[in-house]
Amino acid sequence: MKPLGPIPHGFETVNGQLAVAGQTAEMLVKRAGDTPLFVYSSAIIADRVDSLRKAMPERLRIHYAVKANPYPDILKVMAGLVDGFDIASAGELEQALAAGQRAACISFAGPGKRDRELRAAILAGVTLNCESEQEVRRALMIGEAENIAPRLAIRVNPDFELRGSGMKMGGGPKPFGLDAERVPALARDILAAGVEWRGLHIFTGSQALDAGAISETQGKVLSLASQLTEEIGVALPHLNMGGGFGIPYFRGDTPLDIGRIGNSLEDQFGKLPDNLAETEFSIELGRYLVGEAGVYLTRVIDRKVSHGMTYLITDGGLHHQLAASGNFGTVVRRNYPAAIASRFDSDAVEEVSIVGCLCTPLDRLADQAMLPRADVGDLVAIFCAGAYGATASPSAFLGQGPAREILV
Amino acid sequence: MKPLGPIPHGFETVNGQLAVAGQTAEMLVKRAGDTPLFVYSSAIIADRVDSLRKAMPERLRIHYAVKANPYPDILKVMAGLVDGFDIASAGELEQALAAGQRAACISFAGPGKRDRELRAAILAGVTLNCESEQEVRRALMIGEAENIAPRLAIRVNPDFELRGSGMKMGGGPKPFGLDAERVPALARDILAAGVEWRGLHIFTGSQALDAGAISETQGKVLSLASQLTEEIGVALPHLNMGGGFGIPYFRGDTPLDIGRIGNSLEDQFGKLPDNLAETEFSIELGRYLVGEAGVYLTRVIDRKVSHGMTYLITDGGLHHQLAASGNFGTVVRRNYPAAIASRFDSDAVEEVSIVGCLCTPLDRLADQAMLPRADVGDLVAIFCAGAYGATASPSAFLGQGPAREILV
Repeated sequence: MKPLGPIPHGFETVNGQLAVAGQTAEMLVKRAGDTPLFVYSSAIIADRVDSLRKAMPERLRIHYAVKANPYPDILKVMAGLVDGFDIASAGELEQALAAGQRAACISFAGPGKRDRELRAAILAGVTLNCESEQEVRRALMIGEAENIAPRLAIRVNPDFELRGSGMKMGGGPKPFGLDAERVPALARDILAAGVEWRGLHIFTGSQALDAGAISETQGKVLSLASQLTEEIGVALPHLNMGGGFGIPYFRGDTPLDIGRIGNSLEDQFGKLPDNLAETEFSIELGRYLVGEAGVYLTRVIDRKVSHGMTYLITDGGLHHQLAASGNFGTVVRRNYPAAIASRFDSDAVEEVSIVGCLCTPLDRLADQAMLPRADVGDLVAIFCAGAYGATASPSAFLGQGPAREILV
Repeated sequence: MKPLGPIPHGFETVNGQLAVAGQTAEMLVKRAGDTPLFVYSSAIIADRVDSLRKAMPERLRIHYAVKANPYPDILKVMAGLVDGFDIASAGELEQALAAGQRAACISFAGPGKRDRELRAAILAGVTLNCESEQEVRRALMIGEAENIAPRLAIRVNPDFELRGSGMKMGGGPKPFGLDAERVPALARDILAAGVEWRGLHIFTGSQALDAGAISETQGKVLSLASQLTEEIGVALPHLNMGGGFGIPYFRGDTPLDIGRIGNSLEDQFGKLPDNLAETEFSIELGRYLVGEAGVYLTRVIDRKVSHGMTYLITDGGLHHQLAASGNFGTVVRRNYPAAIASRFDSDAVEEVSIVGCLCTPLDRLADQAMLPRADVGDLVAIFCAGAYGATASPSAFLGQGPAREILV
């Protein structure tokens, strides 16, 4: 028997079934037309943003990292909840603008921006988080050709990393941003070019659950920003402090203590150095805002026993839920939270492995899990499906195609 | 410095550039319209099938596993080269039929076939490799409702696995097929139902490079098929012996000795038991037929140095080449074969890391590799991109979209 991760808060039981916004899993599937289906809860998203706002200093702007989930209805809801979007491609720029987000509240980071992407961003008026000297040169040339002053920030590769983060994005050589010591000279070039100087972007890692580590890193980010600002010589207009806020996926993971992070940040904002006194601060969060608000529903097509192990075979799989299958940058596979959605309040009585419909042993959704008895026709729920699910999975694999998605 | 995998045979140098079918990388990109681009070589595919036919017993039918690469032009070429297609979904059925493959030469395996997929297959007249008793019952019911006798085979979960295979699909509990001891009873049910009995499918693993292990497993497959046929009581019409033929991806991998496999199989066919004397035998290969025939071309957008490490940042990435990035079911990341396509005959003079354009540290294409000096605008080639590339990668990730593809 292997443990399942913790089911996120905000999901209900109606008539014995998993329900979102009062609608049972079967009702949601009927409404969407078929399984497999991603269901996203606007209430869980709104609650999350609300509790985050209450915990964080008022001064801190909250940005949404579109990459976590660009589903159009989520972007529309999110545009009304947060202070800005962070994007990573011209494709995401289109998605963000289509959702009604104002270009002035969008910033674009990414190590490999094509000229046409720089041009689209400059024409739209979004801030470019420049990742190299060459990228700044290309942006300035495009701005000149288009007769528009680009809005340029610099992404910094800091010398420190976010301790305990699932993905480290600072510390040592990295393809992201500019090594800190080269930032002041490039910032002065940007200022000398007479374009709009938008400040710094310092991203250190993601998916951390240790509030102390995040606060410590935020302190280092503020201190590095102040030091770089000192060398640059003009007050810093904006500092994107990165993200890093994680969510519990696996048994033993505990929710992030955002109250502690907020208090620490309030303290740090209270004693800012002069050159950051007027700075606008933001954090960019993707997974933390939407990850727990989504559930993936897939129907049991077959139930079979092989050498004593019971398998539930579903119509979903890793083509929609690559990370949950344990095949996306994972060394040791562990179970995401999972349940039998159509028997959500039944007792766990048997050990089963839930697999997808793909003809590959990689396609596992829950391994040796204790769950209620389920049969052909039952619905399986895989939680924590709101971020890095639908778009971070190979939906065309084995001729399957994308899952349906619905926001309720 | 980390080694690169071996560049497959069949690629040329023209004017200093990597070339396929006499066309340089730049010509191919111009013809396709842009990077990133998958280039597939019909000559390399044809050579591969040809040398395989020469090595294998004449009696052995060669099937193509569509999942490896369903690019329409490849399927069209392949339909003229091999004896049948193996598919894994109704989506692949459509692709196979669109490519001109005859339904009588198609078989459909997959643990989670929906009713609508069974119906489409039965209506088309393809063979169903049934994975459970319930699936046989569903197929019989659909056949009755449609007044068509389904063509049914049984997929067997053997008690042995293919030694040294990258992916084991037999031995112990598995979601695939039926445990061997339950096969005879189900086969007799199929025969009793008066539908077309198509025999057995025994798949034991994939991506093996040890000819001895493959031959040994083929021997076990024949012996298991004979034993099951004895119990079933009628001669076996067809045996799909599975695949398992691997290709070299990494330094130290050696090409599979197909001559040795062919000789051993010839021997085994020479002393077949009576109940297999009239059996039609096939192997199903995907990766082995197309994997080395494809190369992924992506253009360098930026070149930067961070803490002494040089990065080439390209317009491609893991959204097209998930397996090459080391994030698809891999424990230890190793470099696929890679080259600077626009300087294919230049000397390797510097250590660089090649990354994709995605804003994630997972997006690595070649790590600390010795390569010719390359700059912005150069083309990078990642080899072994013909199988499990385009469709096995999350192309919508970060708003990127699919790569272009071309067969020459």
